[in-house]
Amino acid sequence: MSRLDVVILAAGQGKRMYSSLPKVLHPLAGKPLLQHVLDTSRALQPERTIVVYGHGGEQVQSALAGHADLGWAHQAQQLGTGHALAQALPQLQGDITLMLYGDVPLTRIDTLKQLLSAADGGKLGILTVTLANPTGYGRIVRNAENQVQSIVEQKDATPAQAAIQEINTGILALPTARLAKWLSELKNDNAQGEYYATDLIALAVRDSVPVVTTQPAYAWEAEGINNKVQLAQLERIHQLNQAHDLLVAGVTLADPARIDIRGTLQHGKDVSVDINCIFEGDVSLGDNVTIGAHCFLRNVKIAAGVTIQPYSHLQDAEVGTNAQIGPYARLRPGAQLASDVHIGNFVEVKNAQIGVGSKVNHLSYIGDAEIGTQTNIGAGTITCNYDGVNKHKTIIGNEVRIGSNASLVAPVTIGDRATTGAGSVISKNAPAGELTIARARQVTVPGWQRPEKPAKK
Amino acid sequence: MSRLDVVILAAGQGKRMYSSLPKVLHPLAGKPLLQHVLDTSRALQPERTIVVYGHGGEQVQSALAGHADLGWAHQAQQLGTGHALAQALPQLQGDITLMLYGDVPLTRIDTLKQLLSAADGGKLGILTVTLANPTGYGRIVRNAENQVQSIVEQKDATPAQAAIQEINTGILALPTARLAKWLSELKNDNAQGEYYATDLIALAVRDSVPVVTTQPAYAWEAEGINNKVQLAQLERIHQLNQAHDLLVAGVTLADPARIDIRGTLQHGKDVSVDINCIFEGDVSLGDNVTIGAHCFLRNVKIAAGVTIQPYSHLQDAEVGTNAQIGPYARLRPGAQLASDVHIGNFVEVKNAQIGVGSKVNHLSYIGDAEIGTQTNIGAGTITCNYDGVNKHKTIIGNEVRIGSNASLVAPVTIGDRATTGAGSVISKNAPAGELTIARARQVTVPGWQRPEKPAKK
Amino acid sequence: MSRLDVVILAAGQGKRMYSSLPKVLHPLAGKPLLQHVLDTSRALQPERTIVVYGHGGEQVQSALAGHADLGWAHQAQQLGTGHALAQALPQLQGDITLMLYGDVPLTRIDTLKQLLSAADGGKLGILTVTLANPTGYGRIVRNAENQVQSIVEQKDATPAQAAIQEINTGILALPTARLAKWLSELKNDNAQGEYYATDLIALAVRDSVPVVTTQPAYAWEAEGINNKVQLAQLERIHQLNQAHDLLVAGVTLADPARIDIRGTLQHGKDVSVDINCIFEGDVSLGDNVTIGAHCFLRNVKIAAGVTIQPYSHLQDAEVGTNAQIGPYARLRPGAQLASDVHIGNFVEVKNAQIGVGSKVNHLSYIGDAEIGTQTNIGAGTITCNYDGVNKHKTIIGNEVRIGSNASLVAPVTIGDRATTGAGSVISKNAPAGELTIARARQVTVPGWQRPEKPAKK
Repeated sequence: MSRLDVVILAAGQGKRMYSSLPKVLHPLAGKPLLQHVLDTSRALQPERTIVVYGHGGEQVQSALAGHADLGWAHQAQQLGTGHALAQALPQLQGDITLMLYGDVPLTRIDTLKQLLSAADGGKLGILTVTLANPTGYGRIVRNAENQVQSIVEQKDATPAQAAIQEINTGILALPTARLAKWLSELKNDNAQGEYYATDLIALAVRDSVPVVTTQPAYAWEAEGINNKVQLAQLERIHQLNQAHDLLVAGVTLADPARIDIRGTLQHGKDVSVDINCIFEGDVSLGDNVTIGAHCFLRNVKIAAGVTIQPYSHLQDAEVGTNAQIGPYARLRPGAQLASDVHIGNFVEVKNAQIGVGSKVNHLSYIGDAEIGTQTNIGAGTITCNYDGVNKHKTIIGNEVRIGSNASLVAPVTIGDRATTGAGSVISKNAPAGELTIARARQVTVPGWQRPEKPAKK
Repeated sequence: MSRLDVVILAAGQGKRMYSSLPKVLHPLAGKPLLQHVLDTSRALQPERTIVVYGHGGEQVQSALAGHADLGWAHQAQQLGTGHALAQALPQLQGDITLMLYGDVPLTRIDTLKQLLSAADGGKLGILTVTLANPTGYGRIVRNAENQVQSIVEQKDATPAQAAIQEINTGILALPTARLAKWLSELKNDNAQGEYYATDLIALAVRDSVPVVTTQPAYAWEAEGINNKVQLAQLERIHQLNQAHDLLVAGVTLADPARIDIRGTLQHGKDVSVDINCIFEGDVSLGDNVTIGAHCFLRNVKIAAGVTIQPYSHLQDAEVGTNAQIGPYARLRPGAQLASDVHIGNFVEVKNAQIGVGSKVNHLSYIGDAEIGTQTNIGAGTITCNYDGVNKHKTIIGNEVRIGSNASLVAPVTIGDRATTGAGSVISKNAPAGELTIARARQVTVPGWQRPEKPAKK
Repeated sequence: MSRLDVVILAAGQGKRMYSSLPKVLHPLAGKPLLQHVLDTSRALQPERTIVVYGHGGEQVQSALAGHADLGWAHQAQQLGTGHALAQALPQLQGDITLMLYGDVPLTRIDTLKQLLSAADGGKLGILTVTLANPTGYGRIVRNAENQVQSIVEQKDATPAQAAIQEINTGILALPTARLAKWLSELKNDNAQGEYYATDLIALAVRDSVPVVTTQPAYAWEAEGINNKVQLAQLERIHQLNQAHDLLVAGVTLADPARIDIRGTLQHGKDVSVDINCIFEGDVSLGDNVTIGAHCFLRNVKIAAGVTIQPYSHLQDAEVGTNAQIGPYARLRPGAQLASDVHIGNFVEVKNAQIGVGSKVNHLSYIGDAEIGTQTNIGAGTITCNYDGVNKHKTIIGNEVRIGSNASLVAPVTIGDRATTGAGSVISKNAPAGELTIARARQVTVPGWQRPEKPAKK
């Protein structure tokens, strides 16, 4: 097997993105464009991967700080793709050099493997696509034996050449041993004064290096991003692809055009997802999970049999088997729900463990708390966890009944099987098994006149 | 008029659904595929409808338990469509037998009537469609007089036959009197070892029974479902069809591609529905009803002039004329709102009657309650209806003013024109016309030092 | 420069809209169809604009009451486009008369300028489009020199004429000086008994007035609306156009097919909008603003650096730099948030100023209030602003800590650096720097037996 180096061009500014973020860091499906290319590259197991950086270089390097194995080549001025490749040249030591682009995020791994395989043995491989309208792209010119002779740019094309529909994607598999000589021979005698990697093809032909081509299965694999229109287009293609994969795997989607996955979504059997749900980070859904419409899930683990009703917003949380969540439920980081827990509407749970079968059904805030099993938290209950400086903990036992509109002033403990009265402020521990209340006497004020609207005349 | 029997093939497993639910029970627009076919069949007023069941037969029979008039035929092994039909044979007593499929849900009634009419008088009728790409389907082979001669499967087709674009949908109208003989003559000498109903065509030709064809208006009428990709495709087609019908009838839809109707939606004049609404079960909307974005309505009756704002979730509820609902309003089963009621944000209403002109505008839970007319429920009010075992009732009169953050401990009655103080726990009846409060005295604690963040050094 | 008059035909009933609203008043992107046409017309700076009204005339005039400069011509009976134009004739005093239609909302200004320019100097200009399927439209018949000879209606067309794909859109630029004579010569000897403006072309040819044509860049510019299907189609085209413009300008849209703008949306740099957001009225978004999924914004001004999380509903409000809003936050009219304010889930703010760095994070209602800087409002806090008749004000100082489940009974003032206890009803002013509480003593009731479910037998 040939030794592979990958060079990823990531120096461009992306003017038409109108952004202070370097182009290659714009996210697609929640992940920077460049990271998509890196992940694809990594799957090819190259000996080394070199990122050619330029505009926004510090931001790019910082965004990829976690990738210790990357090589970096600085392209101070953007003088063309050939010039970019030349910056990486000193680091190239393998047999084949694969040129990829930090703004071409969706090339499939199989497509690149096919290209590398075709180029193996010292050949030059070009990934080409055939377009109904090739205007603006470099045409692949072949001789009578169908051998590639050169790539002719739009402005240099004869009418016959302009009619060629096979075009250069820019993705090349190059014989590394030839690159030092070839790159030194590139000329910038063109309108832009740039050095083009496409001119390597003519040099290969001159030197009788065989030039081969392969094509991706889908045209979008070779599409690059120069503006937000193209970013949105590839985002949609990618989302539809992901939706299709889920459908094939047996997930029921109410509308494949209305699901967004920005990360990884693992799932069991008989999972169903209604319209307009968003999944971010790492989400796993067990068997028989039902996700209602308009839900947002980020980094959550949902066990089998769970039903999540519409408008629920879950982040960094775990939900146990057969739990019932929502509608309008919000689970914040650290929410850990055991089996059969019910979290109802307008309820927020943060950094709290809730035990098997317990219920928080209405209009409550549960933060920094431990709740036992089979406990019922009345509507309007607030754990007063914050004294303005510190967060304190509320501990509630098993089979407890917290009355409605309770304020539980942490730190506080409510014993097993305790009951608290409606509207109580519980600021001291409540003993197990007893009723604890903090309630003013109800009185009717005699003779009180309430404000009334003036009688209409 | 010929007597009609319908046979619905529903024995398949649907392996590629990757589900423990039999294929024909997967829902499209909220209704099992098989139920769609049954509803269509019923509209043809057949003498009898026989469902051929097999995989998941118990689940299928249980799902259709409400249909007492169905005949059932068990197909223990899936040995082909001809074999399936043979299982139903003993029950067929009419003139025409219409073969339908439990996984082909969207055939239009008119299409089937046209087929039955063409086949009337002892002919064999085939529903065919013409496809740009017929690969994989059985081709309709005709003679020089354009008469159908046979159906040739893909693998048996000559190049000329393979080029035929008219294909067999599998939906057949058969002369019942011929079936006993024909079915006994079917052979399973093919690769799959199955008995094919398509072979009936050759037998009809042999016996000089005229073979006729009709075509549906739309290709999707004949499309079957074998996986979730196809299920999602037909779901979308069906939803767009429904949206189109609503538009034609004068309903304003912000986006016909973003409305989901899983049941029946009746509507008056000048009804407007914003993006991403879901309607389930039986929903009726009166004249001049406006539904905001992202709403969910299931089994609700909305009277004229009602405005529902975004993110409202209504189920098994009734809303009176000119009521204003939402945003973020939740009506649960048994919510019955009279005219001019206002239900505002983060309010949940369950099993409660609310009288004309009354308002529950903010952050409240109203459960198991009766509220009179022109009453105002303050923000944060909770009806404490649940003692942990039993549900109790709260009765509130007319022109009452309930102060904010009230806890109304049921069973309790608030008299007409009563007022209750903010933050009160009302656990005894409050008399009409008077102010009732349960409130602790406000005191300022001298010299109390609150926790402060340590000064930054 | 020629003097321009614009005549807008707006007398039609729109039967197939099935609405009590006149057709031209139906909204597209939140604005009446006729208003779209008027806005386009205004951009051409005509000397006068005359609206020909008929069905629902009072509603139309009332809807446009703000446009004092409009001329009005009443068409009592709808006797055709020529008849409509004749009603406006007495008011026409310029050189060119442009005929537009109140139900053709999306014609681009450049398209009309091109038509007017082509027609300048006494020519007759027709806006034409070329359709793959011209069935039903009036064909543009030209002679051997390619000069327009006449417009032939579908029913009068010879086979050769029926094959013509260039059709009349109805939008005409007419030499005003000729109109008096020509309109008097129009005949209604057709099936409908109407006077057609298209017959003006034959009169122009007869009188040797040159007839010229121009074409719009997009076919939808000439599309009219006769039913809700067409209304929905143009709504979608318009929304996609707006989304495309935002993308080109550098806004990141998660899905260009899932954003609705019904008004104007101004934006800074590095703005990102997630799926299914709706913008109504005048909305401005500063640099680095992030809008989460499913948000609704109407007439709001969002400063730089603000993050709005999903399901937030903002109307007539202002949000300061770097504020954090939502999820499930509702800002109602008069909400004015300073920099770094946090408004969390299930919080409603109405007519309230909230100072720099203050937080209302959970389940609260803040209405008719002024809150200072760096103040924290506890979960479940309610400003009791309404006594059933009048709204009163709550004033809260700087660095205040309001305990959870507080009821602040307005009018009331909480001094700077004051603290209030959880669950307190604060009905009198709370002094600065001190702890104020209103709380009942917590007691445990000895021997109380709570209701229990009967033991299972």
